[in-house]
Amino acid sequence: MLTLNFANMMEKVIGPNGMNEKTIEGLSLKAAEIHREIIGRRRPELEFMDLPGGDTTDIRKLGGEVRQESENFLLLGIGGSALGPRAILEALSPYHNLRKTPRVFIYDNVDPLTLRHILSVVDLTKTTVNVISKSGSTAETAASFMILWDEMKKAVGADAAKMFIATTDPASGNLRKIASDFGMRTLPIGKGIGGRYSVLSPVGLLLAEVIGVDSRELLKGAADMRLRCAADELLKNPAYMLGSLLYLMNADGKRNVNVLIPYADGLKFLSEWFCQLWSESLGKEGKGMTPYPSVGTTDQHSQLQLWMEGPEDKVVTFIRIDEYGADYTIPGVFEEVEGTNYLSGRRLSELIKAEEESSELALAKRGHPNMTIQIPSIDAYHLGGLFQFFEIATAFTGLLLGINPFNQPGVEEGKNFTYGMMGKKGFEAKREEVEKAREDKACWQI
Amino acid sequence: MLTLNFANMMEKVIGPNGMNEKTIEGLSLKAAEIHREIIGRRRPELEFMDLPGGDTTDIRKLGGEVRQESENFLLLGIGGSALGPRAILEALSPYHNLRKTPRVFIYDNVDPLTLRHILSVVDLTKTTVNVISKSGSTAETAASFMILWDEMKKAVGADAAKMFIATTDPASGNLRKIASDFGMRTLPIGKGIGGRYSVLSPVGLLLAEVIGVDSRELLKGAADMRLRCAADELLKNPAYMLGSLLYLMNADGKRNVNVLIPYADGLKFLSEWFCQLWSESLGKEGKGMTPYPSVGTTDQHSQLQLWMEGPEDKVVTFIRIDEYGADYTIPGVFEEVEGTNYLSGRRLSELIKAEEESSELALAKRGHPNMTIQIPSIDAYHLGGLFQFFEIATAFTGLLLGINPFNQPGVEEGKNFTYGMMGKKGFEAKREEVEKAREDKACWQI
Repeated sequence: MLTLNFANMMEKVIGPNGMNEKTIEGLSLKAAEIHREIIGRRRPELEFMDLPGGDTTDIRKLGGEVRQESENFLLLGIGGSALGPRAILEALSPYHNLRKTPRVFIYDNVDPLTLRHILSVVDLTKTTVNVISKSGSTAETAASFMILWDEMKKAVGADAAKMFIATTDPASGNLRKIASDFGMRTLPIGKGIGGRYSVLSPVGLLLAEVIGVDSRELLKGAADMRLRCAADELLKNPAYMLGSLLYLMNADGKRNVNVLIPYADGLKFLSEWFCQLWSESLGKEGKGMTPYPSVGTTDQHSQLQLWMEGPEDKVVTFIRIDEYGADYTIPGVFEEVEGTNYLSGRRLSELIKAEEESSELALAKRGHPNMTIQIPSIDAYHLGGLFQFFEIATAFTGLLLGINPFNQPGVEEGKNFTYGMMGKKGFEAKREEVEKAREDKACWQI
Repeated sequence: MLTLNFANMMEKVIGPNGMNEKTIEGLSLKAAEIHREIIGRRRPELEFMDLPGGDTTDIRKLGGEVRQESENFLLLGIGGSALGPRAILEALSPYHNLRKTPRVFIYDNVDPLTLRHILSVVDLTKTTVNVISKSGSTAETAASFMILWDEMKKAVGADAAKMFIATTDPASGNLRKIASDFGMRTLPIGKGIGGRYSVLSPVGLLLAEVIGVDSRELLKGAADMRLRCAADELLKNPAYMLGSLLYLMNADGKRNVNVLIPYADGLKFLSEWFCQLWSESLGKEGKGMTPYPSVGTTDQHSQLQLWMEGPEDKVVTFIRIDEYGADYTIPGVFEEVEGTNYLSGRRLSELIKAEEESSELALAKRGHPNMTIQIPSIDAYHLGGLFQFFEIATAFTGLLLGINPFNQPGVEEGKNFTYGMMGKKGFEAKREEVEKAREDKACWQI
């Protein structure tokens, strides 16, 4: 279902930049200890490991209602509440809005122009709005929810609440209270599920059902991946290996960038989802690598030059696809023109696969460490598997680093300044601080 | 039109991670020397500096034809041939395909599934195909062109050539020859214009006209920006300052990641365009910083944690927008619910601006260097200015690093392996090398 090839991480293959088996084996005991922590669910946030066993009856029922009733599905959420759903949408139903209904809009910002454009193309009387916020107090989501609530009341009057589905904490928080006060439909996000580990909860699964993807397939792929990554022996566990190899490459602080480059347009947003998962989970206490979202072959014409000849600061992880689910033979046209006729008669899938393998080798020959995740195809089953794989790998790496991979204390300060600027009570001093800083900055402007 | 505020790069503001005026002034002589190289056009590739003075008559005429004749505009290109056009599309006509015709499709990969989806939603008899390749030998673009040529012949027969516009070298190369042999319409990419510096050539401008954007406005903004960045005095030249500050922050190799975070959804692809420009131009001879594409406020819920508490390896450049061109007042609904009512009565634009400023300050208070580019609005004029600004800054930084910012020698090796795999004559040994490597890798797989 998934293989990890790490030959190009090894000293024997790429030379001195690589590592040897001994170094990897040195992590075995620690890995086994972390494994016990994970399978023992010793932290409440490890609840994400149990999502694959979830019952999706309610989600399928709601998804069916949306498919029947609505022309549009507007998702309000930010961070994990949007990136997971978007990864599912782009991977499993590309060009969705030109091909299928309900059309899907994901508003994961507070850019007024984006909202203007969305509202200009959707008829709210035929739109289901899915508000996603675990706490219910995320400023961006609260703001867009308040605007949509008002607009929806203008559009459908007293029935407004029927147009909303709130995905939130099962018991507490603003959004749960509002949903309950007004009688909105709701779906729960389990107590221990953090935003970035929530894609296999109703956060991602409702969208899946809305676009006609069987949520059970996503979970089945995730469940099988959980089994695939259940070995306590490091060298047999691909998720732990991915984490360990990146950890070791970063150990001296030298390689601080890890690129994820799937060779498929549909997985571009899987890269972005992964980048949030990895950044917020591991970027703390001065630790963490910067995950870089990429896509092949496109970025061979954008980033590859830097990876090949820039500083020795990266590890590149390829995602290789066996079957694209479509193909074209490049026809023998322009035969008289030298230079492109070598392509004649070849298949497009051959070209993309050749480019992927060529990039691996070109990097390896220069001694740049890289590894390859290989999957049979891009479908609900294997996408569910990838989500689970990266979540396990990320949590594992956080525990290996000795940090808490489930919190994000670093974003509080910025929030407090925003509260101050927006006039929230108790944050007046923060507002003054911003205004003072603004004055101090004026003289450094050109 | 554009200001650069670099207070949060300075020691006086952020403490020891910042720099002092003396260090910056130390680059003055070198900057003046590079300035003379640029204004003297001492390298042929500096031709991009002259694009703002271009005559767009032909482009406007062709754009008008496409708007009148076509329901769809399909662009085939990769790297600079796609990223610039896409940046224009997303910035100046978001949600374009749901709102306007001709609909625009940019195929910048060889993913067969993407092509299948595009061809499933466009009627080729009503589609103009714009093939963009300076050399005409780019494998990805050649492959998709050959397929489209064949499909178009099936769709419209002998008139196929009329459906294509080739944007390519004015005189040489495969694409020029094919276009001339078959009588296609063409637009020239000037001799000295490299792919990543080509957005203000017909590469980007034709797409602009097709979506109803006046190409002259893009060029006017670029021309005014060229004037704005014409000061030989470093401290008065925002493009040179951006480059110098990033250069200095990277000088000891410590800060090797530079994030670009515009606070506007429409500029997400400007970030991606910039990342190609910067990566390919500067990533060589072991030098270069990794440019990171980001977007606010969204990535505050994805990357900010890492920037705040991760390793000290980044410089963050914000893009602040004065006027979004739309706005909403957050209505006073849910007043009884504690926690979100501070937002009531505030405008959405206030919130996004408050978050931008808050993130700057939160980073600065932790001593993380950052700077801010501020523009009045997102329109053709200011977008043209941003393109020119970043191109000047990038070329300047390359010359400061003592490397050639206009070549990309590092991508050749990968291309050669691909040629081998695809059976191109003369590359048989490369194919064998790939096959050998494949065998060697097999034992490192789990």
